[in-house]
Amino acid sequence: MRCQSGAEMEEASRTRASFSRRVLNGLLLCSGDMEHLDKYMKDKSFVLQLAVCGLRGVTRVILANNPLSGGLILAALYWASPWQGLLGTLGVLASTLTAVITGQDSVEVAGGHHGFNGMLVSLLMGVYSSAGDWYWWLLLPVFLGSATCVFLFSGLSSFLDRWDLPAAVFPFNIIIILYLLCTGPEHPYFPHHSIKPPGALEPNATELIALQVIRGIPLGVGQIFACGDLGPSLLILGAVFLYSPLLAVHALLGSAVGTLTGLSMAVRHESLYSGLSGFNGALGCMAVGGFFIFSLWTHLFAIASAFFSAYADIALSNLMGTVGLPACSWAATLVATLMLLLTGSLAAYRIPTGQVRAPERNLQLRSQWEAGNTEERESADV
Amino acid sequence: MRCQSGAEMEEASRTRASFSRRVLNGLLLCSGDMEHLDKYMKDKSFVLQLAVCGLRGVTRVILANNPLSGGLILAALYWASPWQGLLGTLGVLASTLTAVITGQDSVEVAGGHHGFNGMLVSLLMGVYSSAGDWYWWLLLPVFLGSATCVFLFSGLSSFLDRWDLPAAVFPFNIIIILYLLCTGPEHPYFPHHSIKPPGALEPNATELIALQVIRGIPLGVGQIFACGDLGPSLLILGAVFLYSPLLAVHALLGSAVGTLTGLSMAVRHESLYSGLSGFNGALGCMAVGGFFIFSLWTHLFAIASAFFSAYADIALSNLMGTVGLPACSWAATLVATLMLLLTGSLAAYRIPTGQVRAPERNLQLRSQWEAGNTEERESADV
Amino acid sequence: MRCQSGAEMEEASRTRASFSRRVLNGLLLCSGDMEHLDKYMKDKSFVLQLAVCGLRGVTRVILANNPLSGGLILAALYWASPWQGLLGTLGVLASTLTAVITGQDSVEVAGGHHGFNGMLVSLLMGVYSSAGDWYWWLLLPVFLGSATCVFLFSGLSSFLDRWDLPAAVFPFNIIIILYLLCTGPEHPYFPHHSIKPPGALEPNATELIALQVIRGIPLGVGQIFACGDLGPSLLILGAVFLYSPLLAVHALLGSAVGTLTGLSMAVRHESLYSGLSGFNGALGCMAVGGFFIFSLWTHLFAIASAFFSAYADIALSNLMGTVGLPACSWAATLVATLMLLLTGSLAAYRIPTGQVRAPERNLQLRSQWEAGNTEERESADV
Repeated sequence: MRCQSGAEMEEASRTRASFSRRVLNGLLLCSGDMEHLDKYMKDKSFVLQLAVCGLRGVTRVILANNPLSGGLILAALYWASPWQGLLGTLGVLASTLTAVITGQDSVEVAGGHHGFNGMLVSLLMGVYSSAGDWYWWLLLPVFLGSATCVFLFSGLSSFLDRWDLPAAVFPFNIIIILYLLCTGPEHPYFPHHSIKPPGALEPNATELIALQVIRGIPLGVGQIFACGDLGPSLLILGAVFLYSPLLAVHALLGSAVGTLTGLSMAVRHESLYSGLSGFNGALGCMAVGGFFIFSLWTHLFAIASAFFSAYADIALSNLMGTVGLPACSWAATLVATLMLLLTGSLAAYRIPTGQVRAPERNLQLRSQWEAGNTEERESADV
Repeated sequence: MRCQSGAEMEEASRTRASFSRRVLNGLLLCSGDMEHLDKYMKDKSFVLQLAVCGLRGVTRVILANNPLSGGLILAALYWASPWQGLLGTLGVLASTLTAVITGQDSVEVAGGHHGFNGMLVSLLMGVYSSAGDWYWWLLLPVFLGSATCVFLFSGLSSFLDRWDLPAAVFPFNIIIILYLLCTGPEHPYFPHHSIKPPGALEPNATELIALQVIRGIPLGVGQIFACGDLGPSLLILGAVFLYSPLLAVHALLGSAVGTLTGLSMAVRHESLYSGLSGFNGALGCMAVGGFFIFSLWTHLFAIASAFFSAYADIALSNLMGTVGLPACSWAATLVATLMLLLTGSLAAYRIPTGQVRAPERNLQLRSQWEAGNTEERESADV
Repeated sequence: MRCQSGAEMEEASRTRASFSRRVLNGLLLCSGDMEHLDKYMKDKSFVLQLAVCGLRGVTRVILANNPLSGGLILAALYWASPWQGLLGTLGVLASTLTAVITGQDSVEVAGGHHGFNGMLVSLLMGVYSSAGDWYWWLLLPVFLGSATCVFLFSGLSSFLDRWDLPAAVFPFNIIIILYLLCTGPEHPYFPHHSIKPPGALEPNATELIALQVIRGIPLGVGQIFACGDLGPSLLILGAVFLYSPLLAVHALLGSAVGTLTGLSMAVRHESLYSGLSGFNGALGCMAVGGFFIFSLWTHLFAIASAFFSAYADIALSNLMGTVGLPACSWAATLVATLMLLLTGSLAAYRIPTGQVRAPERNLQLRSQWEAGNTEERESADV
């Protein structure tokens, strides 16, 4: 075997190279927006199409759009708690089906735009419920709430369309607040945990444990899906990485910024340990990372957005905590909307809402849509 | 007399038929928007014109537009409480006159668009006041509040015009909340009752009485005018029926849905009995029934709107109850605005805001405005 | 010396007349918007330009735009409290520099549009801080808060631009509320005074002292800059007078209306004495006086706006006081925005936002921009 001819060695190395190229190609096919899948799905059955657009919907929460990532995230949720996984699945299906029935734009439905709000509402209803797991009556508000998200998404989209703004997770934030207001900690049918604001004073505060705080950073990414376990949170982070490594970096960075912010404002230790301090920062950072073309400037703005989201989250949590409500992701959603409205140097990197892809692809497509923009402007001038 | 000739009998039956036809025609003339009245009123005195546009304003609250219905509603209010009737009359006059003075669009003023918010503000100020009836100082905030409604209506209309949305009862909701915030339960000049949220726990709750709950359904229609007596409420329902039987059906249905919602959320019994649980549902249902062309689809959406309005009302009432405020008709107004923004199958039945008539007339006019729409689009394309 | 010739006397009187004319001209050059300064500043150093646009920013708070007035106001603040003066200076510089760095429109930056919100945030942070003067850690939130104002100003401007509305002091109001919510009366790093709503009942209320109430009227103008001393307040009023005597009259009138409103609603005496009752009225009155061409009609609307602002301020203060927050200038800002949206007779006097100058200059320019409007309309028609 030692005396391989040069031709054989060349052959072997070529095979190996082509193999690794094929693996890489396969990975590349599975990452990003997987637009090639749409063509393939066109003549498949309704159930399969529903599954794919549901899975796309699952990833829309974290500004991704990839059915494989969606599968990983769902797996993470089932791993953390089967009941929560079930609720999430039902939520995404209920709202996607409502969108189909009420005649929403089919491209939007196929892209998963009508699934993610319903999913979040269901997950949070499950988390806040104090009736324990497998309390089947909860499915009633889960279905109703998820379905109503479609109405809010459609209406808010019409409203915000004037500024080319996405409805984002506003519907989820509105519906979960209305649900919690309707019920209450001692409601006879749907009781829920009372919520403690992060700024509440701790009578006998212990020392802050640095390791726990650092552990809170990846947990912050999991908390976007109301998941507080380390393993599933890392799996969710992996799902983001599969869609776009750049976005995963933004998520971690934002969560770290959020935790730092929490430290600077001396919030309750529990908030830091559980990742609740970090998730608004993560969302705020990802929003700028996802909706703008990556560059040094954009990156600085993403960090500023993470800081602003995290501070606004502490403020809103303290405000809404006075009436026993959580701030959910209001802060990040509002700040992200603000960043999209910004004029000045950031606006130059803005991608029109309908043309947003994975950050890496946006970088590639930049010249393309810039050319389109110029053409448009020229045709408008003429 | 028995031996009537055939000719005489024919004559008599013809007379009877023509008489009943004339009665029917007279009724038909009195129902709907009574647009023929406008031509007749053109050269009449200012006072008479003011009276007619005031009465039109009274009916605008329930999305109707008919001076006779307005007269019936005013009669119902005077029947329930002369003081309330007086306040309502003064409110509608004060805001209509303010609109004339501040130079608002005369077609809008004549259509009663500037009267209904002022009327609601006055009625609610009277209801919440704990100083008792015939407390003449109350006329001061009544005049000021009604006049301010014109400013809010005009400003909000400019704002919402971008989406072809009506200002609806937003001005009333804002002004009454500001008024209640300015004063308070122990205010030296304008004290008011403290408001109990519907979700407040009842320490010694009694059995629910089914008859009382059913009685709450028509009361829900009366509560739109802050009227809690059965007789006047039925008269108000009759006034809606005179304008449009379809709208009256929507009102009752919406109120029933609201009451059902209240039951499902275990609100206080008093809320159910008094009709307060029902009136937001009624308004939400009527809004869809009034602003969209009647069809099976629209009807389903109207019911969904009633449910959403009623749930949102419970949520907002619980929220605003924490600072001692009522939720008024915020829920129905917000949900109705959302429904008007909706895309998808409902949007196809949308009537442009300026062209809304009685639901029956909308059905007739459908083809007409559809043709207009197509023409418009064509001329825009060319 | 007695036997002066006629020629000499004529000469002397002419000199005197020319001298007084020159003084008057000099004063006229220093009043109004001082647009001639912009040409002169073009080739000056960056530091000098920054100083001028900072001083312009200082006056933007009171709808003025004059660097000399800005200097007077800063002097008044340093007179009242050197620490407050320093905070104000740092705030206006921090936000103006942030605007330069984030690439905001240079004409806007030069006009001081990005300075005034940052200044107000810094001043109010200083006033509410209970850590005492010269607490250097406060500079951290002062810098961050002032910088964030630029983001909000830019984003809100994009949003409100659709209705030709200015972002006004919305950014300040949002940031200071978020800051106060983040921290709290017992915050370990940034404690602040607890805020008492104006409607809070006084257990042992004393007689109202008329002189103190009258003293509160000029203080109301000073309270726009969170300054509660009589001398500095009068100096600030003088600065407004230098920019535009008409605007100064509006300020005083509005403050008087606000105080009257406070009396009619029986607010706490302290509110009246300190001028806190008056400053929202003053701002509401100045906004109409500044953004509309002066006339009898406009003047009546300005008074109505002052009343509405003052009542809304009492209402919002009572509402936000329940969670320990001040109402800042929310009321005046919202009411002013509403007035700008108004249709009817007031709208005819509206000046497009970009073309607003000192009220006296607006009167002069009226015919000019009216002509422009007609031309525009004509070119649109053709």
